[in-house]
Amino acid sequence: MNTCSAPLDILITGGTLLTMSPAMKVVEDPVLGIRDGKILFVEDAHSPLAALYAPRERIDARGCIILPGLVNTHTHAPMVCFRGIADDLPLMRWLNDYIFPLERRYVTRPFVRAGTLLAAAEMIRSGTTTFCDGYFYESTVAETAREAGLRIVAGMGIFDRDFRRDDAEQIAKHVEAARRYLERWLGASELVTPALFCHAPYTCSPGTLKAVREVADAHGVFLITHLSETRDEIGIIAEAFGRTPARHLEALGVLNERTIAVHCNWLDDEEIAILARHDVKVSHNVESNMKLATGMAPVVKMKRQGVTVGLGTDGCASNNDHDLIGEMGTAARLHKILAMDPSEMDARTVLRMATIEGARALGLDGITGSLEKGKAADIIIVDTAKPRLRPLYNPYSQLVYAATGDDVKTVIIAGRTVMRDGRLLTIDEEGAIEAVERIADRIRSDNGISIPYLQEAERC
Amino acid sequence: MNTCSAPLDILITGGTLLTMSPAMKVVEDPVLGIRDGKILFVEDAHSPLAALYAPRERIDARGCIILPGLVNTHTHAPMVCFRGIADDLPLMRWLNDYIFPLERRYVTRPFVRAGTLLAAAEMIRSGTTTFCDGYFYESTVAETAREAGLRIVAGMGIFDRDFRRDDAEQIAKHVEAARRYLERWLGASELVTPALFCHAPYTCSPGTLKAVREVADAHGVFLITHLSETRDEIGIIAEAFGRTPARHLEALGVLNERTIAVHCNWLDDEEIAILARHDVKVSHNVESNMKLATGMAPVVKMKRQGVTVGLGTDGCASNNDHDLIGEMGTAARLHKILAMDPSEMDARTVLRMATIEGARALGLDGITGSLEKGKAADIIIVDTAKPRLRPLYNPYSQLVYAATGDDVKTVIIAGRTVMRDGRLLTIDEEGAIEAVERIADRIRSDNGISIPYLQEAERC
Repeated sequence: MNTCSAPLDILITGGTLLTMSPAMKVVEDPVLGIRDGKILFVEDAHSPLAALYAPRERIDARGCIILPGLVNTHTHAPMVCFRGIADDLPLMRWLNDYIFPLERRYVTRPFVRAGTLLAAAEMIRSGTTTFCDGYFYESTVAETAREAGLRIVAGMGIFDRDFRRDDAEQIAKHVEAARRYLERWLGASELVTPALFCHAPYTCSPGTLKAVREVADAHGVFLITHLSETRDEIGIIAEAFGRTPARHLEALGVLNERTIAVHCNWLDDEEIAILARHDVKVSHNVESNMKLATGMAPVVKMKRQGVTVGLGTDGCASNNDHDLIGEMGTAARLHKILAMDPSEMDARTVLRMATIEGARALGLDGITGSLEKGKAADIIIVDTAKPRLRPLYNPYSQLVYAATGDDVKTVIIAGRTVMRDGRLLTIDEEGAIEAVERIADRIRSDNGISIPYLQEAERC
Repeated sequence: MNTCSAPLDILITGGTLLTMSPAMKVVEDPVLGIRDGKILFVEDAHSPLAALYAPRERIDARGCIILPGLVNTHTHAPMVCFRGIADDLPLMRWLNDYIFPLERRYVTRPFVRAGTLLAAAEMIRSGTTTFCDGYFYESTVAETAREAGLRIVAGMGIFDRDFRRDDAEQIAKHVEAARRYLERWLGASELVTPALFCHAPYTCSPGTLKAVREVADAHGVFLITHLSETRDEIGIIAEAFGRTPARHLEALGVLNERTIAVHCNWLDDEEIAILARHDVKVSHNVESNMKLATGMAPVVKMKRQGVTVGLGTDGCASNNDHDLIGEMGTAARLHKILAMDPSEMDARTVLRMATIEGARALGLDGITGSLEKGKAADIIIVDTAKPRLRPLYNPYSQLVYAATGDDVKTVIIAGRTVMRDGRLLTIDEEGAIEAVERIADRIRSDNGISIPYLQEAERC
């Protein structure tokens, strides 16, 4: 039987496999072969294919759900260092008294590396295999993600001192930095896709937005921007430019199919049509938006208009975790109650947003987001042998409404096993925790930052 | 030092202890002694008390958060057997085509026992130490919970064939059954508090509601009822009795301080005042209400009016889990975004709802819900040594916004360790899963029940 067997890197057998293919094919008791980082075959157990190969590694997935690795369309990974530091505050106090001062005082290259490593551990543990990030020192974020074996769309952060007026010198610097960044990363790693992240229409001048768009287009990469996150933003952009934020970006010629608009909480119907017309991709960050009370994105309407919408967690100062499985449940529940219709945002739809639609939002749907022959082997295995996940009538329901990131058992990215049976293989987890705790210790003892919890009395 | 040491059952040392006492005292590096099921002392490490005792068991909680066991104010525990069987359907189809037929065909005493055991495993795993249940065969629910070592308020289910008209014979039967049930359980177990569960104003006639209230009052027990869950219910009660549901119950004299009103999604301001005036307790089931799109309870308003509000998960056909830690995060996020104010429903407030306020809602705040000398030793220990829970600036934030039920490591109820380091000590977990899967197998092969997932095509 094995006399003429061909080599294979990994063979996964057993369980229930959700392909998330266009036909949403489900394979019971599958055999999935991985070679050279890609999926060589996905068949059922009756297929003669598996017998032709001699795998170096076998993974028994009986009793488990096998699905594509999750795609987190918006993070600021290093912000894990600020997780829970100042919650439950009015938005402007949170930003002006905590987040901005903390970023000014603490964000360095080593900080970004430490934070990204902890975030990577958290993301892998909870089944994310691809994330789209934007922050300071983004090359360090990309390097760290690559080391951890994670797939990343790494958006180099760009913002201006004064978004109301173009500053030619500043714009030239942005363009030069963006070119250098893209030249460094384009083609440098299978795992890293560079992008440009103009922070927001209220932090980037019109000239900056246009120039960065040009650089992005010249290199065929995505431009990422926060858009219409808060109600205040509408007023600010209207005052400065006499338009809503989405119309402002359209007027500047910034919107095209390689654009990721993050949040989109305050769009009117015509703005949704604008995004649809330009095939702009949307990142929906439901838990961040709820917790910061910034707004509720019209996701059902956007999807009905054909807009591609992926899910994102946002940074951990606002969420406070990177668990995309939890995010799925929250997105389903919020949009059901907003629509007053329990059949809206069904489990399949939400799981598509967290996988193939998320991949499409990042321009990576040819590579990841579904388990199909020829695609990258970005695969997660969810253990369902626990009281919370039994009985199991419907794997989609179980994943969206009952599972959490902790149920992910094994994670493979580009054919490399990065977590096996709950053990991380690419990250020294204790070391990653210690490095971030050392940063947290410095913040705790900083007289210039008054952490609300530590200020409060009534403690022993 | 130990020469004259007194006996002690358990000594917990280290970590951060949240008492949830009225002053919300937090003890860093605590010593907590347990004897005869009760908390003998809670002190800091400098206290000489710990040295006076010789504990039979020591629990090292360094790096952990110690807090009162969580209180789930509304469940239908045996419904775990229907978890995820028919999600994302319009409410009436879900009820009439699935839940009601399933209950008619499958709910027997062995079904209730199997479901409750699995639910108990799930609840203990996720840190619930007390739950308030209402279902068929409630004595079996109570027995099973007691065996698992869980504290339960067990509500005997009551409903009528026709809620519009009183049926004297039916009412007499209810009263007789309620008396027998209360006589059986009152004083029978430290862990079991019996109650009476009139299903809803649209399933119990006025005469039934009044008679059951009388029996409950005569025995000093709680009357539980669903109230104003859906918008439809308002119309149904208005048509039958010319009033809203809360006014209907008030007019019948059913509302008093030993009443738990579950859901309360559609109350007007005057109805909130009615609940406040009668000191009615409210169970808020945010994930169930969102997922079934039944409504959004005015929790912030109710709390402002002084109504005691606890959290509940509802049954697992609607939620789909018993994780009260997840419920906390969802409640915080929903009420922030509804109020458009991130400072609403802060982490402390939500954790109070899941502990001491929940206990108060069940009339058990003298016994459980906070870690104070003399109260029952209902204690959970949350492991924070994982990427998702680091760094740790604020234990309340971490629990509400980043933790999940899976982070609970050790659970003590009435001084008995029911889970230690993630291992259940009172339940044969594999056996419990198998028993429920056998029921699920019968349902899957039942031609009279078409499980939507199994009907769908496009499967291999």
